[in-house]
Amino acid sequence: MKINNLPYRSLWVTADNLAVEIIDQTQLPHFFTTVKLHSMRDAERAIRDMQVRGAPLIGVTAAYGVALSMRHHASDAALTATCDMLLKARPTAVNLRWAVERMRAILSPLAAEQRAEAAWLEAGQMADEDVAVNAAIGQHGLPLIQAAYQRTGKPVNILTHCNAGWLATVDWGTALAPIYAAYDAGIPLHVWVDETRPRNQGASLTAWELAQHGIPHTLIVDNTGGHLMQHGWVDLAIVGCDRATARGDVCNKIGTYLKALAAFDNHVPFYVALPTSTIDWTLQDGVAEIPIEQRAENEVTHITGQTDEGEICTVRITPAGCRAANYSFDVTPARLVTGLITEKGMVAANEVGMAKLLT
Amino acid sequence: MKINNLPYRSLWVTADNLAVEIIDQTQLPHFFTTVKLHSMRDAERAIRDMQVRGAPLIGVTAAYGVALSMRHHASDAALTATCDMLLKARPTAVNLRWAVERMRAILSPLAAEQRAEAAWLEAGQMADEDVAVNAAIGQHGLPLIQAAYQRTGKPVNILTHCNAGWLATVDWGTALAPIYAAYDAGIPLHVWVDETRPRNQGASLTAWELAQHGIPHTLIVDNTGGHLMQHGWVDLAIVGCDRATARGDVCNKIGTYLKALAAFDNHVPFYVALPTSTIDWTLQDGVAEIPIEQRAENEVTHITGQTDEGEICTVRITPAGCRAANYSFDVTPARLVTGLITEKGMVAANEVGMAKLLT
Repeated sequence: MKINNLPYRSLWVTADNLAVEIIDQTQLPHFFTTVKLHSMRDAERAIRDMQVRGAPLIGVTAAYGVALSMRHHASDAALTATCDMLLKARPTAVNLRWAVERMRAILSPLAAEQRAEAAWLEAGQMADEDVAVNAAIGQHGLPLIQAAYQRTGKPVNILTHCNAGWLATVDWGTALAPIYAAYDAGIPLHVWVDETRPRNQGASLTAWELAQHGIPHTLIVDNTGGHLMQHGWVDLAIVGCDRATARGDVCNKIGTYLKALAAFDNHVPFYVALPTSTIDWTLQDGVAEIPIEQRAENEVTHITGQTDEGEICTVRITPAGCRAANYSFDVTPARLVTGLITEKGMVAANEVGMAKLLT
Repeated sequence: MKINNLPYRSLWVTADNLAVEIIDQTQLPHFFTTVKLHSMRDAERAIRDMQVRGAPLIGVTAAYGVALSMRHHASDAALTATCDMLLKARPTAVNLRWAVERMRAILSPLAAEQRAEAAWLEAGQMADEDVAVNAAIGQHGLPLIQAAYQRTGKPVNILTHCNAGWLATVDWGTALAPIYAAYDAGIPLHVWVDETRPRNQGASLTAWELAQHGIPHTLIVDNTGGHLMQHGWVDLAIVGCDRATARGDVCNKIGTYLKALAAFDNHVPFYVALPTSTIDWTLQDGVAEIPIEQRAENEVTHITGQTDEGEICTVRITPAGCRAANYSFDVTPARLVTGLITEKGMVAANEVGMAKLLT
């Protein structure tokens, strides 16, 4: 990925090997700033405050959190306490659990004095794996966009919700990986970017990273996708995923379900891009079984932006004292999903399709 | 309706009978200010700039616009020019056309010197009719809420989109009229208020007027309704309408279609409240035939609110230079609508039901 034409990842080890550096995503799109994580508590806070977000990036950040912790305290008790604290930083993303448990499984059998180095290597391995996985998702999704272009001969219109781009991963992204792959392959395309209330990850992050890559895009409010699909202005939708169940239900940013309903109603293919690490094989019925994180009311009642004078300003957009509910995710039933694009290829969102991913 | 416990309408004639006074809805929810309209151009600007909005209120404001114009120039040419200019102020709301054509039909046969007084009386008549029509919509919708309460014995959860309250009409509102009627009848209820991007009429207006009336409500982002319905937290949805077709398709604020899809998918009754003047009997297929107003990009890219210090501040919430599309309405096909609540009673959203409204 590029920022001002320089190659970047969304997380990297500092030159002195003592810390991990991240892009502070809460400052985008107005300021590009980076933050160094020196400790497990830094990593935990970066996850909780959403300086890093996106299921895959949360996982890798948590892995580095474990690694940073092991440098200071590497006893069994410290390992347990570290893992427990990191697991609580965000409740929905299964990659967080996946990453922390992977670190725990690697480190538990080792002697305490071996853990710091092993943890650092393992976290680095996970970061590299994430890049490879997302590149593979991009290649598996590319033919869908290619086919749409061959069918119509016109720029392919793709709708996406929230940010499942490279900012949500270490590189490439999940939902945006096929879009970057198609664009780099010379296929003309245009992205409809849902602003994605609250927190506006579409307006703040997806629009920003697409612009950095030079990909044509138009921002829309979350209410608009159905209208566009009714009029044939969307060729396909691709979204990311924070947790998928064994039968193919997908939990993603709130509002994904509404777009999936509209896609289904208008015969628009609706794809979900995810690494297989996002699948929670212990769950079947996503609506009934996946706990949905509720966040602070002020993410709904207040909004932050930049004035014409360049100042960052937070304003209340409701009557004083107005109460709000803030559910962060919803679950899209598998019946509405055309296909799951994974690093192992595309599969149907049902038990038969999912089972292929186990091999 | 009440503001700080004083009775109000959203539009009234000034004591000197020389002007019409409106609530400047662009200042809500932060400031309650009123504006006097002295001329047709004032009325036209109030409609175009959305100081008044909502199909019924637009209609009555336009009627007063004609009346104000007739006081200065009442020739046939002036009447034609006045009507033509007002019709262009907002393209989607059929009530605007209905109101202007009603004024034209009343005034055309009259001598020029009779037109000013007749127009003033007719506009007043239309305002009073609007109040009566909305009160009737409230009474026809009340049993739906009552039935939900009798079924569950718990406070009735009602979801609404945009603002179809008294601020959208002269009094009572359309979608909110049954809610006010039920609340005043002692039925416990709670309203989920969609913030309704862009322009946020839910967060700015619906939340404000419900609070003024003391009705329990919770603000949600537009992405949330599907999740709530999946979990049984919505008993019924009621929305307003800007134009309906002869077969029951309804055009309303962008995003209404998505909520109707979610209601249908979860067996939640989805009602549309509208005066019969909102029906465009010349149209059948709403998606194909109703022109959808596109508004300025900065309604999407910028947002206005109030700082902690009480200052009104407009901020950009996107990367600099980000392009946006701003479709104001969408069309919900009749197949997704449980019933239309009109001043003549509730009818099915199909040709048979609609035909009953013609008698």
